[in-house]
Amino acid sequence: MHLSQPYLLFLGDAADDLAAKTARGIHHWRPDICLGQLRLEGCKTTLGLRDMTVAEAAARGAATLVVGVANRGGIIGESWRAVFLEAMAAGLDIAAGLHQRLNDIPELVAAAQEHGRKLYDVRHPTETFPVAHGVPRAGKRVLAVGTDCSVGKMYAMLAMERALKARGCKADFRATGQTGILIAGEGVSVDAVVADFISGATETLCPAHDEDHYDLVEGQGSLFHASYAGVSLGLLHGAQPHALVLCHEPGRPHMRGLPGFPLPSLEDCVDLNLRCARLVNPKARFIGACFNTSSLDDDAARRVMHEAAEQLGMPVVDPVRGGVEPLVDRLLSDA
Amino acid sequence: MHLSQPYLLFLGDAADDLAAKTARGIHHWRPDICLGQLRLEGCKTTLGLRDMTVAEAAARGAATLVVGVANRGGIIGESWRAVFLEAMAAGLDIAAGLHQRLNDIPELVAAAQEHGRKLYDVRHPTETFPVAHGVPRAGKRVLAVGTDCSVGKMYAMLAMERALKARGCKADFRATGQTGILIAGEGVSVDAVVADFISGATETLCPAHDEDHYDLVEGQGSLFHASYAGVSLGLLHGAQPHALVLCHEPGRPHMRGLPGFPLPSLEDCVDLNLRCARLVNPKARFIGACFNTSSLDDDAARRVMHEAAEQLGMPVVDPVRGGVEPLVDRLLSDA
Repeated sequence: MHLSQPYLLFLGDAADDLAAKTARGIHHWRPDICLGQLRLEGCKTTLGLRDMTVAEAAARGAATLVVGVANRGGIIGESWRAVFLEAMAAGLDIAAGLHQRLNDIPELVAAAQEHGRKLYDVRHPTETFPVAHGVPRAGKRVLAVGTDCSVGKMYAMLAMERALKARGCKADFRATGQTGILIAGEGVSVDAVVADFISGATETLCPAHDEDHYDLVEGQGSLFHASYAGVSLGLLHGAQPHALVLCHEPGRPHMRGLPGFPLPSLEDCVDLNLRCARLVNPKARFIGACFNTSSLDDDAARRVMHEAAEQLGMPVVDPVRGGVEPLVDRLLSDA
Repeated sequence: MHLSQPYLLFLGDAADDLAAKTARGIHHWRPDICLGQLRLEGCKTTLGLRDMTVAEAAARGAATLVVGVANRGGIIGESWRAVFLEAMAAGLDIAAGLHQRLNDIPELVAAAQEHGRKLYDVRHPTETFPVAHGVPRAGKRVLAVGTDCSVGKMYAMLAMERALKARGCKADFRATGQTGILIAGEGVSVDAVVADFISGATETLCPAHDEDHYDLVEGQGSLFHASYAGVSLGLLHGAQPHALVLCHEPGRPHMRGLPGFPLPSLEDCVDLNLRCARLVNPKARFIGACFNTSSLDDDAARRVMHEAAEQLGMPVVDPVRGGVEPLVDRLLSDA
């Protein structure tokens, strides 16, 4: 799977900014591939991009209409379909990361066939993957691991990719979730593959590469999350990481979706991830931590990161507040 | 899914004893539900059961024809189909644990519809499962974990079930792989569910039960297997085990299918499994180990088990050579 670019970002009838956070993520990280936005009546948000009709976007070379909005339940809105049909007739593919599949709507499938277009449901892998082999492979891989789900792993790896490229290094973000895939234009939603192939799919996602090339692999879940830890471990083994980045949001009352499960200590999280990573790469090490401190004021954020850095003996940053340069320094220092 | 019993065991044209090992496992553990065997011309093995035609088996009350033979590639043999059609016409369901699905063969699907019969592909779950919740639940659960794949986890749990029942305890084997499912008549092939639902499927498989009831949960893979560890961890969390049994085959040169990956030490395997199990059950403990010593003579087997027992401080048995009584003692001692 490789989504054609540039994108027309579909915001639909987004009820608020949060409903369009997928589109916002794509625009934040890949402004160069975002040609414009398309909003329906009632849309309550904007990316600040030029508003375009399908016809205008097609005339300017848009290749894929990307659904950057989510409503409750991840359903494809009734009012969206006419736009999708118009887009396919105008030569655009459609890509979405929703629970409901574009490919399960006969009207859209028929139109795609008629116009020779593609419908990409990036949350639902259709490829088959090999069983993982675990053989050491060339190139460098960095993996984000977390104390919990939704603590900023994707953001951390995209920030690392940007910082590495800014220094002239060869680097590629490797997406393992739907928003990441729409940003990268490719990737594998690893939590949606058949369990036996979690590690194999990850090996396929970040294969052998030049020795001076960095794959920045988006993490998923946490080894300490009682619902999803299997995905996290399979991903850790398949990524065969040289370097790990600890991702964490200070102040969470419990593991996401699991009242009664406290977060692990940072040391435990570092220790268990290292122990498991070393099965496939004995040289795996942590280069630092990315904290999501959005709920704290500047002083509190600085204090909590300083304390964690002392405690862990590694740089701790908030990629949004201060960037990831100390982690890049550490990564390049003895690569 | 619940397979109707009793079974007619289909041995087909099995080239040797090993090709019919699934049928042999079913007959070994559930002789009471095995009505007879059906062999085609060229079959080179027997279970010692009465040979029956489909008509004879149907007349005696057979409810399901179980495919107990595997050929290279897990394909459904051309020569088998006439028997399957005859069986469905005579009122039997068909169950198989092969890679190729019965439900992918239109001729069989049509016959099943015509006769109102069911085709069970036990390797391929068709249910949808919830995400795991991790909430502590009633009843006792025992899980087999391994240093590697194929070290006797199913055998260990079936032996424990039998021993517990012989002592008058309430116990159920819970199958997580295809042979186990054919033996139990129900279960979930956890390595074939979507990755996000490994733990959730396992919670569904062994739900809350009476406090004095034991679920003996078949393990899969190993936390130390670079291809499948994600499955093993999801299963460990979903099982929420009170007791663990370490399964091991002494003398393996490397992890199954992974040359270059040595086996973990027994202590490492105990330690990592305990550490991960305690996320969902802080009281999880090992009650002993089951060794597959089939490649050793009596003296060597005794020696290796004695040494491991000293080393680990827990009973070590070979369920085939000597039974699992010491593990049952330990399980019941402070349950």
